[in-house]
Amino acid sequence: MSFSVAVAGASGYAGGELLRLLAGHPEFEVRTVTANNNAGQPLLAVHPHLRSYAGMVLSPTTTEALDGHDIVFLALPHGKSGAITETLDENTLVVDCGADHRLTDEADWAKFYGGEFYGAWPYGLPELLIGDHRQQRSNLPGVKRIAVPGCNVTAISLALAPGLRAGVIQPVDLVAVLAVGPSGAGKSLRTNLLASEVLGSASAYGIAGAHRHNPEIVQNLSLSAGARVSVSFTPVLIPSARGILATSTARLAAGISAHDVRSAWVNAYADEPFVHVLPEGQLPSLSDVLGANTALIGVAVDEAADRVVTVTAIDNLVKGTAGAAIQSANIALGLPETLGLPIDGVAP
Amino acid sequence: MSFSVAVAGASGYAGGELLRLLAGHPEFEVRTVTANNNAGQPLLAVHPHLRSYAGMVLSPTTTEALDGHDIVFLALPHGKSGAITETLDENTLVVDCGADHRLTDEADWAKFYGGEFYGAWPYGLPELLIGDHRQQRSNLPGVKRIAVPGCNVTAISLALAPGLRAGVIQPVDLVAVLAVGPSGAGKSLRTNLLASEVLGSASAYGIAGAHRHNPEIVQNLSLSAGARVSVSFTPVLIPSARGILATSTARLAAGISAHDVRSAWVNAYADEPFVHVLPEGQLPSLSDVLGANTALIGVAVDEAADRVVTVTAIDNLVKGTAGAAIQSANIALGLPETLGLPIDGVAP
Amino acid sequence: MSFSVAVAGASGYAGGELLRLLAGHPEFEVRTVTANNNAGQPLLAVHPHLRSYAGMVLSPTTTEALDGHDIVFLALPHGKSGAITETLDENTLVVDCGADHRLTDEADWAKFYGGEFYGAWPYGLPELLIGDHRQQRSNLPGVKRIAVPGCNVTAISLALAPGLRAGVIQPVDLVAVLAVGPSGAGKSLRTNLLASEVLGSASAYGIAGAHRHNPEIVQNLSLSAGARVSVSFTPVLIPSARGILATSTARLAAGISAHDVRSAWVNAYADEPFVHVLPEGQLPSLSDVLGANTALIGVAVDEAADRVVTVTAIDNLVKGTAGAAIQSANIALGLPETLGLPIDGVAP
Amino acid sequence: MSFSVAVAGASGYAGGELLRLLAGHPEFEVRTVTANNNAGQPLLAVHPHLRSYAGMVLSPTTTEALDGHDIVFLALPHGKSGAITETLDENTLVVDCGADHRLTDEADWAKFYGGEFYGAWPYGLPELLIGDHRQQRSNLPGVKRIAVPGCNVTAISLALAPGLRAGVIQPVDLVAVLAVGPSGAGKSLRTNLLASEVLGSASAYGIAGAHRHNPEIVQNLSLSAGARVSVSFTPVLIPSARGILATSTARLAAGISAHDVRSAWVNAYADEPFVHVLPEGQLPSLSDVLGANTALIGVAVDEAADRVVTVTAIDNLVKGTAGAAIQSANIALGLPETLGLPIDGVAP
Repeated sequence: MSFSVAVAGASGYAGGELLRLLAGHPEFEVRTVTANNNAGQPLLAVHPHLRSYAGMVLSPTTTEALDGHDIVFLALPHGKSGAITETLDENTLVVDCGADHRLTDEADWAKFYGGEFYGAWPYGLPELLIGDHRQQRSNLPGVKRIAVPGCNVTAISLALAPGLRAGVIQPVDLVAVLAVGPSGAGKSLRTNLLASEVLGSASAYGIAGAHRHNPEIVQNLSLSAGARVSVSFTPVLIPSARGILATSTARLAAGISAHDVRSAWVNAYADEPFVHVLPEGQLPSLSDVLGANTALIGVAVDEAADRVVTVTAIDNLVKGTAGAAIQSANIALGLPETLGLPIDGVAP
Repeated sequence: MSFSVAVAGASGYAGGELLRLLAGHPEFEVRTVTANNNAGQPLLAVHPHLRSYAGMVLSPTTTEALDGHDIVFLALPHGKSGAITETLDENTLVVDCGADHRLTDEADWAKFYGGEFYGAWPYGLPELLIGDHRQQRSNLPGVKRIAVPGCNVTAISLALAPGLRAGVIQPVDLVAVLAVGPSGAGKSLRTNLLASEVLGSASAYGIAGAHRHNPEIVQNLSLSAGARVSVSFTPVLIPSARGILATSTARLAAGISAHDVRSAWVNAYADEPFVHVLPEGQLPSLSDVLGANTALIGVAVDEAADRVVTVTAIDNLVKGTAGAAIQSANIALGLPETLGLPIDGVAP
Repeated sequence: MSFSVAVAGASGYAGGELLRLLAGHPEFEVRTVTANNNAGQPLLAVHPHLRSYAGMVLSPTTTEALDGHDIVFLALPHGKSGAITETLDENTLVVDCGADHRLTDEADWAKFYGGEFYGAWPYGLPELLIGDHRQQRSNLPGVKRIAVPGCNVTAISLALAPGLRAGVIQPVDLVAVLAVGPSGAGKSLRTNLLASEVLGSASAYGIAGAHRHNPEIVQNLSLSAGARVSVSFTPVLIPSARGILATSTARLAAGISAHDVRSAWVNAYADEPFVHVLPEGQLPSLSDVLGANTALIGVAVDEAADRVVTVTAIDNLVKGTAGAAIQSANIALGLPETLGLPIDGVAP
Repeated sequence: MSFSVAVAGASGYAGGELLRLLAGHPEFEVRTVTANNNAGQPLLAVHPHLRSYAGMVLSPTTTEALDGHDIVFLALPHGKSGAITETLDENTLVVDCGADHRLTDEADWAKFYGGEFYGAWPYGLPELLIGDHRQQRSNLPGVKRIAVPGCNVTAISLALAPGLRAGVIQPVDLVAVLAVGPSGAGKSLRTNLLASEVLGSASAYGIAGAHRHNPEIVQNLSLSAGARVSVSFTPVLIPSARGILATSTARLAAGISAHDVRSAWVNAYADEPFVHVLPEGQLPSLSDVLGANTALIGVAVDEAADRVVTVTAIDNLVKGTAGAAIQSANIALGLPETLGLPIDGVAP
């Protein structure tokens, strides 16, 4: 009863990580890998680390290549998923790691991405709190289309949703500063992504609302809060190849104790296999989750500043992209949610 | 007319950086270097990068060794500067890179450091705004005792003081998250400072008010604001040996435009040789200031979040410690403020 | 028919990596983890990345704790494995990741390690060529004691053995220079292993025959060559947490063509699941094998210098330690050799 | 009596480093900076770390822009220096940081670079031993054209020349493996230079005689040896932005003692201001020389392997390029050789 799988955009970092994880999934069988410029090349020429795919060759990303699989994972550049999905069978499970079907508001799409808007799909962040005792997970069983969240979005949403849902933090003056690795920007040949520029350095980009992940963060957290939130989000590029360490802070709501705060977070994720709130006084390191579909969250209250401070670690390519895609596909297909997904990080 | 100099605690990172800079200072002549455990060793055995000190040997850190110099730079562990300074001539210029004389409030000292309190000295952050048209600079000429600020404190204070002084940001809900290199923690042999732990990772520490730099940040910014401020401060350790990239954000004050914001920052530092506000749309990288006594600040307004976002880069060992010490000594002695201090970073 | 497992020395990097891999092994079940200083602590307090071991607590490393398991993996400091093994049942499979039972010559042990010599065990480098059509693999089925090779040793031995065995390179003037990550040195609190010292730097150590891995390299390659070899070995510490990239070179034997050279390497590893010779013109990157039990080898002939140059990538903690331990245990127990071992690297 | 200076190719890493050093040179005054694609931009837009050049704008690289200066430093792509130099006044001192005038043998040029050959210029490696009591330094006073060596070439040449000149090592089977930072490859937008690829990794390239620096290494060392040498040279890209740590080894000559070896190296550089042989048992770290025009060399004899092992640290952009250019210009112009050149590294 295994499922046949195609991965489109397999030559990028997200595509490569999908393949690394899929190789360990007992019910998914990768039959087709596609690329654009790299079509015709052996997969090993592009991803020499994926030895288990020896012999597999990249096809061009076309309907013909993708058609006829039970599942198609799309790891294409933003704006490229909508059109090709329209050509695929509606019973094929399509999981889009790009931004094309994340935003519910067409105006947000037009402002931050542009081009034709294909509409939002069920959202692949199962743990996101979206109402009393409800999570995004409940929207996924049986669906045939899934939009995988942006990696920064996942980190901030998981970090702040529990407090917003429980009303222990205020929905305004949310501030998130993320240390992020360059793999989040893909293989783009840009000067600021050169090793010489990143090593020994750190730099912020897309600040003050300019980053494309902004509307998606607001969208998620407003769902959790049940009211429109405002967030200041700053990504800081650091010299670690992958991973996100998100410091997300919020004003304490009136009359809320440190115990209330801790309860909100602990209760939100008590039964989650992939999202863990650390014991009091502990904070996660990015390397704790490298290669794993795990999110670790530390929570503390700064009494003097009257704010809650959370620190969240995820692997941008796993829980932030490829792992979330597979986790959501598992749910959609009625498989055990954790199937094929690593939970231990590769550290040190 | 050159000045004789002793550096106490010369075997640490701050001490080493003092020596590197002092070697290029035309009026300061290092005659004595002292250490504790490393006393008796050639300086080159401890700092093989300081070739210009070939032949110099570390003395024990005693009154005898330090006495009789025009200037004594102290780069001792926190709590060690007070007692030894009492044994030095009151006409010797003593510049303390430790925390012992930074805090004005004895209760803060007791809470965050402990041990005997020796009182605050004139504060070595010349550019800090402390009143209308007044800066800390005005307190330094002729003094014989100077307390050098903490490195994180310098980054946040320079970043937010202009907005607080001008009243364009609010004094509460200030949030600062700093990407910091491990050299800020000195040569301490701690597991979390091992290369295996830091490489490929990132981790927060001393969050939610627990970091020793907290009271000093509040002290500075309250001076600038003319009112007690509240700040949430989170340092994040990243795999760059030195440097700080501080993202410091604040609520916009009512009725303030983006133009007002930019003016506040540009005016504050228009004449500064070491602190520069970047043109609109530009942000600093940490490597831009490595090895230099320079602070670079980018400023932007996030209209949607109603907050001002600043990004500030300094070298923790230079503008954050050794460079600030020398700059302040220059002022105290009536020398040109910029004497002997590099302004170009070592990049890439 | 699963096997019960104890891991001694579980709090170090090698111990942690054993646990990470064992969690994915379908026939091995970790029942006991032991430590020295960290005994009594939850495993997650020491290895927060090993979420699948939530609830497990470190016992002291004693005979009582280790007794009664089918397999005991020892990841103890050098010199600590011999005595405790003598107290364990002779039918327990003991796999030693330390150096205690690698060297066959007591004089080498005395010179490079010292202390009591407990003698050599069957050697856990299955792919090592030790005679015509013979490999170390043939010595492992059914054994109850296995010595896992040193990580640098594995890289150099796999790299040069094919040429020595085939007689296409000369057994003298072998030169190997290895770029190695600090995790190979364990969690030792030494100044030169601090992140501040390693970041942005590189340094050689244990050169000119002083490194403890020297006699083991000579031992292996002499077996492969069928004659005493001489090797110059230099490890260079680089700022990547784990992994080894070994450049191993040798004089071309008289009358040997580039085709002969390639054939020697290709034939040696044609059927190996974990050791791969890359196509002509390709060279491995360290990140290709991170987290995997894979060794990748590139081979080229420098006609002008009359030397063969090989470049080999392994993960020091996997193929260099924990993976080799499990692979060898699989063979000893008659299980499929590849069981539970990842072959795809975690890249980028 | 200060000299007017133009820097061509100022927007690259070598050009930027020339400017950083020139800013501190008391006799050189930079009047013109030129670039190709970046012409018209403020220098600060390209090199935000060079604050001392605020206000300077990049001109196009033309004869008109470069003409009329006392000194022209060329930091152009290989193959671009020859033609433009022919248009410059013959009394202008032209210092070429590119490869165009390094090789004496036109066949080497044709094989490794190609395009028109403009012939060799006096060679800017003053410390290179080229005969009894002779160094390249003696060829530089008064010249008007200087070719600056390749960075890898400088490291290997300084490392092995003393032993070859003294006859204590053999001229064949020389082996050099260099850990090198990505800045040596310039700002080229190539996938293998992306931070995601370099971080946490290491990789060799241009091995087995394929690297362009090969003929230049042979050229230098043959001069030192007084006979044709053969060298195996392998550069290994590591995740440190700048610097080279070269492990260069050689067969011991017959009947030579460890004392003879040490004497050869110590005597060769006893009077050098920038090249230092470390005391017995000490080895350099790359960070010891960052930002400095210093080369540090450790030497040891491996008795068992019958080889000499040297470890050499230089900053590829300083002693390997820009510093060597200025040092050689100082000599050519009759200025003190060390003028304006830092000797202390920026560490940690």
